[in-house]
Amino acid sequence: MLPRGRPRALGAAALLLLLLLIGFFLFGGDVECELGERGGERRGPGSFPCPLTPRVSADGRPRGAAAVDGDPSADRGGRNRSDCVPPRPPLPKCELLHVAIVCAGHNSSRDLVTLVKSVLFYRKNPLHFHLVTDAMARNILEMLFHTWMVPAVRPQVSWIPNKHYSGLYGLMKLVLPAALPPELARVIVLDTDVTFASDIAELWALFAHFSDEQVIGLVENQSDWYLGNLWRNHRPWPALGRGFNTGVILLRLDRLRQAGWGQMWTLTATRELLTLPATSLADQDIFNAVIKEHPGLVQPLPCVWNVQLSDHTLAERCYSEASDLKVIHWNSPKKLRVKNKHVEYFRNLYLTFLEYDGNLLRRELFGCPSPPSAGAEQVQRALAQLDEEDACFEFRQQWLTVHRVHVTFLPHEPPPPQPHDVTLVAQLSMDRLQMLEALCRHWPGPMSLALYLTDAEAQQFLRFVEASAVLSARQNVAYHVVYREGPLYPVNRLRNVALAQALTPYVFLSDIDFLPAYSLYNDLRASIEQLKLGSERRAALVVPAFETLHYRFSFPSSKAEVLALLDSGSLYTFRYHEWPRGHAPTDYARWREAQTPYRVQWAADYEPYVVVPRDCPRYDPRFVGFGWNKVAHIMELDAQEYELLVLPEAFTIHLPHRPSLDISRFRSSPTYRDCLQAVKDEFHQDLSRRYGAAALKYLTALQQPRHPA
Amino acid sequence: MLPRGRPRALGAAALLLLLLLIGFFLFGGDVECELGERGGERRGPGSFPCPLTPRVSADGRPRGAAAVDGDPSADRGGRNRSDCVPPRPPLPKCELLHVAIVCAGHNSSRDLVTLVKSVLFYRKNPLHFHLVTDAMARNILEMLFHTWMVPAVRPQVSWIPNKHYSGLYGLMKLVLPAALPPELARVIVLDTDVTFASDIAELWALFAHFSDEQVIGLVENQSDWYLGNLWRNHRPWPALGRGFNTGVILLRLDRLRQAGWGQMWTLTATRELLTLPATSLADQDIFNAVIKEHPGLVQPLPCVWNVQLSDHTLAERCYSEASDLKVIHWNSPKKLRVKNKHVEYFRNLYLTFLEYDGNLLRRELFGCPSPPSAGAEQVQRALAQLDEEDACFEFRQQWLTVHRVHVTFLPHEPPPPQPHDVTLVAQLSMDRLQMLEALCRHWPGPMSLALYLTDAEAQQFLRFVEASAVLSARQNVAYHVVYREGPLYPVNRLRNVALAQALTPYVFLSDIDFLPAYSLYNDLRASIEQLKLGSERRAALVVPAFETLHYRFSFPSSKAEVLALLDSGSLYTFRYHEWPRGHAPTDYARWREAQTPYRVQWAADYEPYVVVPRDCPRYDPRFVGFGWNKVAHIMELDAQEYELLVLPEAFTIHLPHRPSLDISRFRSSPTYRDCLQAVKDEFHQDLSRRYGAAALKYLTALQQPRHPA
Repeated sequence: MLPRGRPRALGAAALLLLLLLIGFFLFGGDVECELGERGGERRGPGSFPCPLTPRVSADGRPRGAAAVDGDPSADRGGRNRSDCVPPRPPLPKCELLHVAIVCAGHNSSRDLVTLVKSVLFYRKNPLHFHLVTDAMARNILEMLFHTWMVPAVRPQVSWIPNKHYSGLYGLMKLVLPAALPPELARVIVLDTDVTFASDIAELWALFAHFSDEQVIGLVENQSDWYLGNLWRNHRPWPALGRGFNTGVILLRLDRLRQAGWGQMWTLTATRELLTLPATSLADQDIFNAVIKEHPGLVQPLPCVWNVQLSDHTLAERCYSEASDLKVIHWNSPKKLRVKNKHVEYFRNLYLTFLEYDGNLLRRELFGCPSPPSAGAEQVQRALAQLDEEDACFEFRQQWLTVHRVHVTFLPHEPPPPQPHDVTLVAQLSMDRLQMLEALCRHWPGPMSLALYLTDAEAQQFLRFVEASAVLSARQNVAYHVVYREGPLYPVNRLRNVALAQALTPYVFLSDIDFLPAYSLYNDLRASIEQLKLGSERRAALVVPAFETLHYRFSFPSSKAEVLALLDSGSLYTFRYHEWPRGHAPTDYARWREAQTPYRVQWAADYEPYVVVPRDCPRYDPRFVGFGWNKVAHIMELDAQEYELLVLPEAFTIHLPHRPSLDISRFRSSPTYRDCLQAVKDEFHQDLSRRYGAAALKYLTALQQPRHPA
Repeated sequence: MLPRGRPRALGAAALLLLLLLIGFFLFGGDVECELGERGGERRGPGSFPCPLTPRVSADGRPRGAAAVDGDPSADRGGRNRSDCVPPRPPLPKCELLHVAIVCAGHNSSRDLVTLVKSVLFYRKNPLHFHLVTDAMARNILEMLFHTWMVPAVRPQVSWIPNKHYSGLYGLMKLVLPAALPPELARVIVLDTDVTFASDIAELWALFAHFSDEQVIGLVENQSDWYLGNLWRNHRPWPALGRGFNTGVILLRLDRLRQAGWGQMWTLTATRELLTLPATSLADQDIFNAVIKEHPGLVQPLPCVWNVQLSDHTLAERCYSEASDLKVIHWNSPKKLRVKNKHVEYFRNLYLTFLEYDGNLLRRELFGCPSPPSAGAEQVQRALAQLDEEDACFEFRQQWLTVHRVHVTFLPHEPPPPQPHDVTLVAQLSMDRLQMLEALCRHWPGPMSLALYLTDAEAQQFLRFVEASAVLSARQNVAYHVVYREGPLYPVNRLRNVALAQALTPYVFLSDIDFLPAYSLYNDLRASIEQLKLGSERRAALVVPAFETLHYRFSFPSSKAEVLALLDSGSLYTFRYHEWPRGHAPTDYARWREAQTPYRVQWAADYEPYVVVPRDCPRYDPRFVGFGWNKVAHIMELDAQEYELLVLPEAFTIHLPHRPSLDISRFRSSPTYRDCLQAVKDEFHQDLSRRYGAAALKYLTALQQPRHPA
């Protein structure tokens, strides 16, 4: 094996050195792009500004410096059988605990959320998460924590700005002492595939057992891998006995830095790579090799803090009842399908958090007053000012709700940059999942879709996509989960999430019940180029909308076929029977004859489906539930003097469906209409403020309460 | 106030005496109808047979007899701050804990489920629930626990067979020492409106602190009610200081019986009722009056075991952090809307369990081997015999799944007994909720509907019904929640649940996407009477089925209108385009002309919608997902020689809809078709076994794999 292993090993050694350099140069200062809400004091050198929010530094809270004196033998969860232990000074109440997690890619980001939920469920202390990510996970996690707004939780998302190193995220844990803020003395490091079954403060308390020499706390491996006897010529990396598992690590960062940790592990790793294969190269091999050389560095932790569920695990010896279990580690490639005597129990624990409503974790810590983030404070102030007796209380509350957002929930390839590319933007909830396959067949281009789901529904959605050959084959559809909260469908907030995540220069603002012409994606790109949309011309391209009332329907493949179907009564212009005003300005009579794009004038209640540059105005999130949400947006486009150009060959067709749960709940409510009117009034006041006298013409439109819900 | 209070007080005293009599005579022996799975040994005298399952007695496990020696000052959940406590012998591992809950009506039954989930979530011991119920709650809870199959949980449902006393369930806790099995020495008594935040074994351990004289453990009241100074002339019942709250009680039943508890409380109550108003008469007043007289009886419990969330609660003094909290008591009439500093925290805890997937609680206790119930054992054996490599593994697994069932999830008035009454039976999942209002408008008669939902969806459904004036007004619609489990829609199991819960002599076996003629309910009752269905004639009445492909549709009010719509092409016979065989034997041509019911012959693939006596054959639950599920049922009706009589004026119309998630997932799967064929074969073997040569004619039908999925 040596001749084959050697060159790879040398290559790996070179990468290791590179990584080390990254560690020293990039993370030399505090490279964290800090997410937070309270101003910009104490910005460290070398740090990156956050694109989302103002930067915030560590505050004055104790940061892992206080010595604790816990006793790990005191298994205090084991209610039925634990004995009393010698008195020990408790962990100071409200001590801030630091947790570091390395996370790369879409799937790990989902895993991380489940892990974080399990930690938050049991925690009683303020937490500071240090998240070391790639660019994808960064985008996801920044938005997620920013919108999650868990009190007394500070997330900091760091990232390695060069994607070339993404294959090396498995080694990132080794550079944490250099990468994390220099003033940080202790940290718990976790793999994304662990689940907590207990309060993380109990784990933190184990720092107190470190001798002066010890710097790393680890649980022994629960497999025979490092014993090197699994098969003939099995040559694992060197380790003490069974070695240690690095899914859960306690790090004394201060001492590691003092001891020259960076040099220590690179020397060991470089030397071992000369004789050992790098095939299974991961941080764990290197940690173990260093520990074999310096056994005094390690503080072995009780095995319950990393119960390893591989197929041939020795974990069963570790616990005798449920209360013994502290952290479950799904370190088998089979994950939940691993064979294990108690896997049912572990799986149920995992599923508990996988499907747990993350909104319920937004609870304050008793007796640990934490200053809310600026965003949260603003929301709380606004909510406190609401009048509970106001008939529109529920509506106003819904407008103010900050929904938790998990962007690119599933793996997604950003579209290659093309100057005229266009992304279809839409939103949906569970009851419209069935539209996705058809939509994919009609629109081969990129899509950005916001889904309004509960945590449990998000898992159903995941399984739905996995079970669909059509959907799993598509890499250019980005699904953004907005977690349900409140009684009304936040339609415009969903649209804004999908719009903000579109990555092409243009967007087609559609609705989920419409199927575009098969050729629309190509036609739009040609039209955008031809009309010089965006660059020379501020315009919105109108895609004429039709509807069929027939459930079974043969989709027209050309404008000629559309016209024939119109003539035969199989197709109507959209909402022809109930609300022709919504699309009348499109001028369908002219469209019949048109060979070239033609300009139309805005009129009251116009709500066409349009293609616009990505930087178009956002939707007004005050329009929740149903009614007027698109009208207001088109009004704003007009106020900003977008030309409205109808495309002569383009069309999109609405398919029939029963009203959604969200609409049927409010359709008959007079309160709903009153509150909608109130928002309209507020919206107009804002328009007047922003566009002055030019906005006067919209007043008439706003004062006519004749729009159907 | 006395002159007004006196007569009421005397009335109440009379009721009390009555209740006492019930206690002595009804519960004199062991009246529990015991639910269980293991044979019928040790059946106590005076016990009621269970309608659902064979009766099972207490087994040999220790039953609360072992003395424990816990220390309540050891707040072992308070990780951050608790001090070490003197050594104490732990609670014996796997000790069986007894819990009694009084529960009456539909809403309390739902509350009870949430309470039980919270107990199960934290528990580490086998549990024996003693449920004292009214007839409604009995029906609900027996089925629920029977299908929940939680290992190491034994539910026993007792009931008071006379509904006249249902108003007195609030006093039932007083007769528990007489009502519970005489060998039971200790029990924890809980109100349905409490939520656990900790292991119930910790509460059980407090029995060890009882002195020899103490018999009742209670937490002090966290309000000033019993101080009697809330308003002028406020005259509460007598109590020691603030008095005690009876939401959580530890009862030494053995000592209470010895001390003559029954006589003790009736004497006190009767005397107090002479001078006190009975308006707020509840067990708590009587417990407090007895304790005032005999203060030595009570062992005060730490307040965290009953944190009382009324508006003016003193509960906040009781805890300083989350880990202090053991049991939350929602004892305000405002329930979740109560004003309290930490109500957000408490509400999140409550919502956690409200929406928690109860299937996840079906986990074994580590190291407490509990013999599974006969049903569970059978299922497990069958599951173990399945071949994981079998292509139909997922299907077979689904057939064997026992779904948790909560019948009459919402308040429901059983229909008055009428000899020809008919219940509409159907099943649905979340995506068809929108059908319910229309269905209620079309069918004024009783309905029995099975809903396939997750625990969280069940709450959404509850809110949906509450928000709908049409649905909340209906008392004769029974909703039965079958909790989702597994990937396939268990259509026939759902039908069987709905069918089994129908309370009229006849049922109309429909599907949720059909709207019956407005007059169908009346017409059917007339036809049943006229045709002497059931009593003299074994027949199934066929309701001809039609469909519209139009989304907007004016529903015909007569057969004449149906015929006109058929002629104009707005209406078709059901599945006319895709699968005419399914309804061809109905003979629509003959129906056009028919004035009287006519008999038709069974033919392959016939699947009409029929009215039959309630005791008709059940659906075969092996047909899961979609396909053949009704065909098999009609085949069995024919095998049992039901006449098939088509009604000349009856009709029902299918409305168009997109395919449901459940159907679209499997429509394209070849495995699905293969497995469906496998079930068909098994079904036919069973038919042959049961009906012999008469079943031969069905073989042809079964051997033709031409049914669309």
